[in-house]
Amino acid sequence: MSNSLNPAYNRDNISMSVIRRLPRYYRYLNELQINGISKISSKELSQTMGFTASQIRQDFNCFGGFGQQGYGYNVSQLRDAIGEILDVGANKKCIMIGAGNLGKALLSINFERLGFNLLKVFDNDPDIIGTEIKNFKISSCEDLADFCTNQKIEMAIICVPSSAVKELANTLYENNVKAFWNFSHFDISLIYSDVKEESVHLNDSLMALGFMI
Amino acid sequence: MSNSLNPAYNRDNISMSVIRRLPRYYRYLNELQINGISKISSKELSQTMGFTASQIRQDFNCFGGFGQQGYGYNVSQLRDAIGEILDVGANKKCIMIGAGNLGKALLSINFERLGFNLLKVFDNDPDIIGTEIKNFKISSCEDLADFCTNQKIEMAIICVPSSAVKELANTLYENNVKAFWNFSHFDISLIYSDVKEESVHLNDSLMALGFMI
Repeated sequence: MSNSLNPAYNRDNISMSVIRRLPRYYRYLNELQINGISKISSKELSQTMGFTASQIRQDFNCFGGFGQQGYGYNVSQLRDAIGEILDVGANKKCIMIGAGNLGKALLSINFERLGFNLLKVFDNDPDIIGTEIKNFKISSCEDLADFCTNQKIEMAIICVPSSAVKELANTLYENNVKAFWNFSHFDISLIYSDVKEESVHLNDSLMALGFMI
Repeated sequence: MSNSLNPAYNRDNISMSVIRRLPRYYRYLNELQINGISKISSKELSQTMGFTASQIRQDFNCFGGFGQQGYGYNVSQLRDAIGEILDVGANKKCIMIGAGNLGKALLSINFERLGFNLLKVFDNDPDIIGTEIKNFKISSCEDLADFCTNQKIEMAIICVPSSAVKELANTLYENNVKAFWNFSHFDISLIYSDVKEESVHLNDSLMALGFMI
């Protein structure tokens, strides 16, 4: 049984579509482990997840295999290996900007389990600044630049209206924040080509569903 | 200038990756129209959107073209044609289940503009039932089944914890709701293969960003 990464594995060679499936594998394997299941075949995994078995074998082969013909995958080893690829133990320092309903909803996420350390939440509404939401005392955006520089923040979660993002992104970028989880429709990576940006376009997702119906 | 759909256009032949780009086109064209821009080339559009010009031409050709060599695209005609493909005028009846922070955040969406008519919001928390959020008086989940049948609800927005989704999906499916905008990690389409499901997996999105950093 191989549970180590393929020596030929290179992050830059992995397609985005494989990367997008990894968190889903991680999630399912985690649940299997919690439920005390220690071994699973690609066929069984395919029935649980809705991917084809050959897709699953192909995906895992990108990283080194992790399985043995006729034996199946060792759930905890596979989970740990995928977690390592996804860097879930990295504890990357991040902040959130915007403590409205969306920001509040996102504070339910277990950031630590996903590889992030959420240090502070910022807003520019005087009625919100200073209040406490899920153990975060909301800070003023005036303190944003200093905080990012002093704390070497790696990633910012953007939960403010699109119209405010251009100026905000400029402040963050100038203070060396180069990764964004962006819920607005303003594309930061179109302005700063060296940033990593993951956008969640809720409207686009809903319209895609409208098409499918 | 052609602004009508290609007679050979068939919804079932369009790949999901093209469909996923359409809302983005619609959004950008809408902004151009609001800003009084009536004509745009694929090259200009590519600079604004971050897609390649050839990608854009290829995508629009799936549906009939909408452009003339050397002239560019007529913004409002193209916007309307894509809106028609996305069925934004359909006003599909939908409901939301779960009025927590995420549900509240989603109530900021202009559903009508995206092709949906949000009729009611349900929750099972006695403290929330009967309260008003953004003009919606929150209803009890006890009334869910009757409401779906009587109103012929087409789509449900799922903002409840994953552990509650299996039972909820069963109630909705039995009452003829066959489309879901699902924010939980419970995959409804794995149980009911004839439903349309668009899942928003926020954790997966964040983990993909973690990989990119």
